[in-house]
Amino acid sequence: MGNVTGFIALDWGTTSFRAYRVAADGRVIETISAPEGILAVKGGGFEAALEKQIGAWDVTLPVMAAGMITSRQGWIELPYLPCPASAADLAQALHHHTTASGRRIAFATGLSYRAPDGMPDVMRSEEVQVFGSLDLGVKHFVTPGTHSKWITTEGDRLLRYATYVTGEVFAALKDHTILGRLMKPGPDDEEAFAMGVRAALEDPAGFLHRIFSARSLGLFGELAPEAISSYLSGQVIGSEVAHAIRDNPRDAEYAVLASPGIGGRYVKAIEIAGLKVRYGDPQAIVKGLAIIAGKAGII
Amino acid sequence: MGNVTGFIALDWGTTSFRAYRVAADGRVIETISAPEGILAVKGGGFEAALEKQIGAWDVTLPVMAAGMITSRQGWIELPYLPCPASAADLAQALHHHTTASGRRIAFATGLSYRAPDGMPDVMRSEEVQVFGSLDLGVKHFVTPGTHSKWITTEGDRLLRYATYVTGEVFAALKDHTILGRLMKPGPDDEEAFAMGVRAALEDPAGFLHRIFSARSLGLFGELAPEAISSYLSGQVIGSEVAHAIRDNPRDAEYAVLASPGIGGRYVKAIEIAGLKVRYGDPQAIVKGLAIIAGKAGII
Repeated sequence: MGNVTGFIALDWGTTSFRAYRVAADGRVIETISAPEGILAVKGGGFEAALEKQIGAWDVTLPVMAAGMITSRQGWIELPYLPCPASAADLAQALHHHTTASGRRIAFATGLSYRAPDGMPDVMRSEEVQVFGSLDLGVKHFVTPGTHSKWITTEGDRLLRYATYVTGEVFAALKDHTILGRLMKPGPDDEEAFAMGVRAALEDPAGFLHRIFSARSLGLFGELAPEAISSYLSGQVIGSEVAHAIRDNPRDAEYAVLASPGIGGRYVKAIEIAGLKVRYGDPQAIVKGLAIIAGKAGII
Repeated sequence: MGNVTGFIALDWGTTSFRAYRVAADGRVIETISAPEGILAVKGGGFEAALEKQIGAWDVTLPVMAAGMITSRQGWIELPYLPCPASAADLAQALHHHTTASGRRIAFATGLSYRAPDGMPDVMRSEEVQVFGSLDLGVKHFVTPGTHSKWITTEGDRLLRYATYVTGEVFAALKDHTILGRLMKPGPDDEEAFAMGVRAALEDPAGFLHRIFSARSLGLFGELAPEAISSYLSGQVIGSEVAHAIRDNPRDAEYAVLASPGIGGRYVKAIEIAGLKVRYGDPQAIVKGLAIIAGKAGII
């Protein structure tokens, strides 16, 4: 980076707020994390909400913001850039804003994509994680979560991607259908998870039928109550993996951009599918924002 | 039927109670329906719950009962019969019970099935509907609902079947994920439903990705808020149809055992898949219980 003071990286999502104070050499010096997502901000009070969190940080540091903060419910709604797009494209489309407190904020918008089947797709922030991870030398990226994204790059451009409603569907199945009834809490069960993944890989189109086995295997005493949740998680993540890899070469390598907790399940499922996979940096968004800031001449 | 007094048919499920007073010629003379499923019966008070509903009906009439009333949470738990099984097999396995009030009840158990992939499946009552529908001359049956069943018969035997958690998954997606957020109430939208079905038939393995379009098409203004629910319903039912028909001949004919409301969506989806389909009798359980009662010499 060309500056001597560093910057502030902001990852402001629907349900969570994260801010990173970044040194001039790119190291994260301090992190603030709070359950103050954009839905928790009432009456448009985003500036006050921001100052509440990072008020102690130097007001002259440039702020780079990404996430749902640029969506319709956010601070400032920015139109999506269509894919393919690069970090330089995002840098050109930054929206600059100075707060009453004097902070200079640059908002990075998200990317839209129109799949060959005609379905539109949207994301805000995962593209920044990917631009921060291109030096891994991998072309395929997964950002697991409530809405997982499977992203394919070409050179320095993000080419195409697909969203999977995996995390939310798993939670809804567990908490709001009969599939959760026989579940008892327990530690992650690796074998039950793998069993669910294999079932999904063997019959990818049977989701609505296969998941019933989370109940019937329990009823027949063939799956312990403590293992059912892991098994259902394997079914759901396995379904996602089976579909997401279909258009990629068999020898493609994947990078999972997440902490080992949720990321570990994805790494395991991708390995069971017989593919190459590695962990990426779960904080790649900081590096991505630094790259965009650099291309925009902000740092 | 060989008797002159008729009988009482009981369809006692998890969340609903239905009783039919049936004449000697098989006609239903009177129906009682209440939201008093087995889960609403506390402390094992099934006899009192039954008398509360049908106390006015002749105590000498034989009662034929089917449904979750023979499950672990029911009045009397009966072991499943394995498939293949016929109405005669169910007649031989009836459990006979006389209540304190003097009613003779014969409980019909359900059927289990072990699929080639090793997964066990269970049902209680849909098999009776099918045995009551064999004179349609169709081999393939669908019983839509919370847990849909797709059933294949051979001669007078129920050969195999598969459960789909369709109704419950749809409700959970609608009420407990982001997919319901943009929905507004509206009348059934046939075109949006058909669009969802076609998407599912074209990409059967992509469930967790495809359903995200219920949000993204709304965000992009390509689907009206009032049409999103019909579209998502098409996606879910279409996914079920795409998978359930995979092992059957292309010229097979299906009978949908349901009232036109929910049944109509299934008929439409099966037609979009290019298959032959007709309505069956939504009250086929009454006829099925009469057949079983006849084979057991009860009527």
